[in-house]
Amino acid sequence: MTSIESVVAAARRLDGVARVTPLLESPFINELAGRRVLVKAECLQHTGSFKFRGAWSALSALDSAIRSRGVLAYSSGNHAQAIALAARMHGVPAVIIMPADAPALKIDNTRALGAEVVLYDRDTESREALGEALERDRGLTLVRPYDEPLVIAGQGTVGLEIARQAEEFGITEADVLVCCGGGGLTAGISLALAARAPGLRPRPCEPAGFDDTTRSLAAGRRVGNEPGARSICDAIVTPMPGALTFPILQRHCGPGLVVSDDEALRAMAVAFSRLKLVLEPGGAVALAAALCRSQAIDGDVVIVVASGGNVDSALYQLALSTA
Amino acid sequence: MTSIESVVAAARRLDGVARVTPLLESPFINELAGRRVLVKAECLQHTGSFKFRGAWSALSALDSAIRSRGVLAYSSGNHAQAIALAARMHGVPAVIIMPADAPALKIDNTRALGAEVVLYDRDTESREALGEALERDRGLTLVRPYDEPLVIAGQGTVGLEIARQAEEFGITEADVLVCCGGGGLTAGISLALAARAPGLRPRPCEPAGFDDTTRSLAAGRRVGNEPGARSICDAIVTPMPGALTFPILQRHCGPGLVVSDDEALRAMAVAFSRLKLVLEPGGAVALAAALCRSQAIDGDVVIVVASGGNVDSALYQLALSTA
Repeated sequence: MTSIESVVAAARRLDGVARVTPLLESPFINELAGRRVLVKAECLQHTGSFKFRGAWSALSALDSAIRSRGVLAYSSGNHAQAIALAARMHGVPAVIIMPADAPALKIDNTRALGAEVVLYDRDTESREALGEALERDRGLTLVRPYDEPLVIAGQGTVGLEIARQAEEFGITEADVLVCCGGGGLTAGISLALAARAPGLRPRPCEPAGFDDTTRSLAAGRRVGNEPGARSICDAIVTPMPGALTFPILQRHCGPGLVVSDDEALRAMAVAFSRLKLVLEPGGAVALAAALCRSQAIDGDVVIVVASGGNVDSALYQLALSTA
Repeated sequence: MTSIESVVAAARRLDGVARVTPLLESPFINELAGRRVLVKAECLQHTGSFKFRGAWSALSALDSAIRSRGVLAYSSGNHAQAIALAARMHGVPAVIIMPADAPALKIDNTRALGAEVVLYDRDTESREALGEALERDRGLTLVRPYDEPLVIAGQGTVGLEIARQAEEFGITEADVLVCCGGGGLTAGISLALAARAPGLRPRPCEPAGFDDTTRSLAAGRRVGNEPGARSICDAIVTPMPGALTFPILQRHCGPGLVVSDDEALRAMAVAFSRLKLVLEPGGAVALAAALCRSQAIDGDVVIVVASGGNVDSALYQLALSTA
């Protein structure tokens, strides 16, 4: 089981490597949301999302002989870029299995960071089967995107920073809204806050159709999404909470919050005009929840994790023109 | 004459009020520019530009009886929003004289921050005449946008941060590219770097048609721009270097760099995809110079000040679609 000790150990490995991202505030957003909103700008992390933390945490903890044979990941894009950069910084090969319909920007960036990209068809192929073959045949070490203790620990460093920054702002009680896919970020933040800022309550935020964590928390057991659902929030459209992440979420998280794709697009436009931050849809659902689900949130202050900004310009322009 | 002592004094007044903005880097931008590029993300400052520093510096230094009667500014938008917020935070009235063709977002934001906005026609009215009447009739104190020692000192705090952050990156020699209008930011940064990091050489960056500082530095005296020039870089389309700023620039700056509006748009698109930062055209000219004038820049590292991000969404979409 991942613990606060492993999060603290990850923070030591990440010190001087990952960016300490700022906690931003806008009087305009406060007014829109009806309370003070502090935005953790994790889109400014290396590779444009929090995923670099987990990737570096995992790679830096590997035995160097094992690491030197290379690492393997499957990802729609943010974990992919993060593993690619962390591998390049360690001087080891990376192979990334990506869905063929992932955003072009994410595929291009992953290749440009030196990784070998293997594309697969989301509807007809199993990425796990592809991955197992690569692990076996080439001696690669798989780094899972969320159900991996070292990755959860790395993402948890976001929570350590939030705890420290909230204290600087004089905030001891708040809901902390976290964009949630498989739950690695939410679980890591949960561990950090429970240990360091118990008045800060993590809450997973999800897009409609992919609200598996919200429903699982309500049901008290892991449930999956209906097949065939679609969302523009590509970074967080996972099938069900992780086997390792869910018990952590159950212990520490408040109820989930669910927003529509349109609400995510509006939140992207608000981040554009009020924070000067580029967010991708899956990185904007927590801000969308702060703006559109204010009655479901407790307290005078809410902290929002803006988890990523890797979005194609066509989709971004849609967000700006529909808002 | 503004000095390093006044910059340090401004930094004390700004401590805990202005944001310490991050110095960001992208391997993709490094590759495009052919050298290491570190971007000072001053678009993340309160009100979306560095101008908040100078505004707070000036207001916080005013005698409180004088300040309580209110302050006055003329500005195309960024200084306006900065004065409006600094005045609101001090609980005093602000009147802002803005050109009627300023970006709608900047006018709206200035009003939303509680200031009274007086619009004027750039081609037929004198903002100075309007301002003098308001000063006289209402007892307001004018805060000039750049030719004001307290404002220059406040903007200089960007330079103190650059000096400290460059040291953390282990950088002792670099050109520091600064988006330059009237020269307040460039002059302030120049004073700070000359005192704290003399190996960092400030260089003003300007849009074509408004390269008055570049030409003035070459001529050794202040020269103005040709009338009738137009640029999308509204934040920095000033008529000529300031009487107070120019002597500082002359003493400390390297040669200016000039970019086209199209190059500024391309730099905005690069900041979107690679840094997840929203830049306005006038805030992107220094990055444009790093990308497009690399042969005119010295050294293995260049530091770029990304000075503002207040851009209407229509213009931003143009930047993304033409890039």
